[in-house]
Amino acid sequence: MVDSESHPRRRGRPRKVSSGDARKAIADAASAEFAQKGYDAASIRGIARRAEVDSALVHHYFESKAGLFAEVVRLPVRPDRIVRSAFDAPDDRLGESLVRTVLTAWERTAVRSIGVTVLRSAVSDSDAGRLIRQFLMRELKGSIAGRVEKSGVAPAEADLRATLVLTQMAGALIIRHVLELEPLASLSVGELTARLSPSVQGHLDGVGEGGRDGESGGSASG
Amino acid sequence: MVDSESHPRRRGRPRKVSSGDARKAIADAASAEFAQKGYDAASIRGIARRAEVDSALVHHYFESKAGLFAEVVRLPVRPDRIVRSAFDAPDDRLGESLVRTVLTAWERTAVRSIGVTVLRSAVSDSDAGRLIRQFLMRELKGSIAGRVEKSGVAPAEADLRATLVLTQMAGALIIRHVLELEPLASLSVGELTARLSPSVQGHLDGVGEGGRDGESGGSASG
Repeated sequence: MVDSESHPRRRGRPRKVSSGDARKAIADAASAEFAQKGYDAASIRGIARRAEVDSALVHHYFESKAGLFAEVVRLPVRPDRIVRSAFDAPDDRLGESLVRTVLTAWERTAVRSIGVTVLRSAVSDSDAGRLIRQFLMRELKGSIAGRVEKSGVAPAEADLRATLVLTQMAGALIIRHVLELEPLASLSVGELTARLSPSVQGHLDGVGEGGRDGESGGSASG
Repeated sequence: MVDSESHPRRRGRPRKVSSGDARKAIADAASAEFAQKGYDAASIRGIARRAEVDSALVHHYFESKAGLFAEVVRLPVRPDRIVRSAFDAPDDRLGESLVRTVLTAWERTAVRSIGVTVLRSAVSDSDAGRLIRQFLMRELKGSIAGRVEKSGVAPAEADLRATLVLTQMAGALIIRHVLELEPLASLSVGELTARLSPSVQGHLDGVGEGGRDGESGGSASG
């Protein structure tokens, strides 16, 4: 934690506040901004304006919009970071890396507990649900799509593949940890990883791409 | 609709009632029985006892516990029947048949509308959610597992494969119809069928079976 009082700031917008106060003011402003505009439309600039601080200070404390969101909804973990930590794997092991990383994270009680709440909220019809949905979709889909693009896949196709990966992962987490359906709920991380990896790898590789089975076009890009 | 008044019944348990009254009494009793015991523990016999009618009459009107449940929660469609209608496909086309059948059913507005509600309820923490969850899991998982067993797979393994199929299908339906995440939400049934079928077929075929990747055992059966 950096003490802002040791960095005298220019007069003007930023009020004279302790670092704790500024941090809290930013978090409060973010909470209001997210609630009013939703995750996608909320901006660091708008949050800074609301908190009457400089945008740079927001970045300083919270790094990114995702970080701010995680703070505001008190996420004990950063789903976007967990997913990204799997990205070092080579292309042909990326599915396994993603599945194992996510399943392993969910073995921690704190992650599972908040994860179940987040999944329930995301599926619900509430404003909070919409917010969480936007956060997860933007951050998780976006980062997976970015990783797929790095393998030389066109953006629209990468976007679709990332979405398909989310269908398999979200479904597995819901069945295992929300519905707790056996025998899947009791499977070890290793066994479930082996079962889910081929499916996730197939989505990453674009298996089934171009298949239309006699149906007319439709665009794969949003 | 059979008029029960044209079939004089033995004296005793069954009261003298019109077919409409008996039907309603059974539905009311089922509603109470499901609410109190949950889907799994509720029984046709218990419902008949509660409605003061013969079990045969319950079967006559509603065929099965699944039928009674669909009536009580006013499901306009029978998820268990939709899934079963895909089972005629040969083993190596079963994944595609399942995916196409389910996605096609969800294109109907009435199915989609109640489907979204049912999925939301199933994921929620409510008593109704628990009930719907039990129904879906018992009927859908059970019927898919039964179909897999017909291909010569042992029951415990068939049960796990059916559960894995549900992870992919539930995740896809939630992302497409509840979260409405693009580009998946706008994909045609044909395109999405092509994308999801390999994954579902892999689960049906047991791809990844026996994989443990250095983790110790754990049982695949419940």
